[in-house]
Amino acid sequence: MILKMSEKKIERLSLYRRRLYVEQKSRDFIFSHDLAKIANSNAAQVRRDLMSVGYAGSTKKGYNIKLLIKHISDFLDPEFRENVVIVGAGNLGRALLTFFKNRQAKLCLVAAFDTDPKKVGRDIGGTKCFHTDELASVISERNVKIGVISTNESATEEVAEKMVAAGIRSIINFTCIPVKAIPGVFVEQVDITASFEKAAFFTK
Amino acid sequence: MILKMSEKKIERLSLYRRRLYVEQKSRDFIFSHDLAKIANSNAAQVRRDLMSVGYAGSTKKGYNIKLLIKHISDFLDPEFRENVVIVGAGNLGRALLTFFKNRQAKLCLVAAFDTDPKKVGRDIGGTKCFHTDELASVISERNVKIGVISTNESATEEVAEKMVAAGIRSIINFTCIPVKAIPGVFVEQVDITASFEKAAFFTK
Repeated sequence: MILKMSEKKIERLSLYRRRLYVEQKSRDFIFSHDLAKIANSNAAQVRRDLMSVGYAGSTKKGYNIKLLIKHISDFLDPEFRENVVIVGAGNLGRALLTFFKNRQAKLCLVAAFDTDPKKVGRDIGGTKCFHTDELASVISERNVKIGVISTNESATEEVAEKMVAAGIRSIINFTCIPVKAIPGVFVEQVDITASFEKAAFFTK
Repeated sequence: MILKMSEKKIERLSLYRRRLYVEQKSRDFIFSHDLAKIANSNAAQVRRDLMSVGYAGSTKKGYNIKLLIKHISDFLDPEFRENVVIVGAGNLGRALLTFFKNRQAKLCLVAAFDTDPKKVGRDIGGTKCFHTDELASVISERNVKIGVISTNESATEEVAEKMVAAGIRSIINFTCIPVKAIPGVFVEQVDITASFEKAAFFTK
């Protein structure tokens, strides 16, 4: 439960920062109620969240946006660059490779993996694609801590196990089969199928 | 809060069904504790969820898998096909178009939209791409109720407003700017940026 709570907080801080990047173009300070409004939250929640990054604004002027971004970044981001691998270079995997490229300064995508001989050895969106058999060696050589799974569903469990055995500590799983909870490993499920089925259900 | 609860339930039912599709290849019946195990849940939760689709298994044999899939589908799926549009045919949009194609029998992707003249008028992954200016007319002509936003972030709000004005009742938003709550409209945020930032945070 504590983990769940803090996951939500990380999501909110991530969102605050993205909104602050936009806001800083037009102003220097922001009040908690204004930040709440553009981040689908409420002012009390915003103030509680920002207390945990160790920055309190002034009651008169609100938060200094530049300083606030710096405090959120110090809290959220890894101290050094973290290496990331993606397993499964199909349509979704390739979209993620591109999506990823120009966004995360502190995350460095070092390799993609697939079993398809047409992809192995090639460069996909600027990232080299290896055979999945090389997963363990690349992960340990490059000291990779974050792994993305975008294979088809039958491979999910095997890939997750290989990742963890090789040293991965955070998994983002885009397949429609959930990765079983593994002690000490953070697993984020992005369940696109469920999102579509929910959207369909709530049109009723 | 009630809405939140039932969203979680829909997610779980969606997942149970996917796991049952796999299980039915090797057996006819399943117990709640076995279904719980493969769906990261617990037996009591599974039984509660399945009560709401109106199907109780036998204490001796468990649930008949075929019947259970039918009951979940009757509960989850729209009665008739629902039309879907995607706005934003960049990398992620194109991946979603392909992802979508062969999966959802009850959801029919009828149009993609973009402002890029290189995409407008072309066929993208089997779906025609229109100019975003035509959004309102296509939505009302085809009676579309579900809209996907995969534009870049600056367009999110404008696209969401146009969708809702034209009759969309469920939005799945893949951009990193949340759609503001709109009464009577279901909004599902799929925040891939936050997923990566959470994964990075929890490697610490």
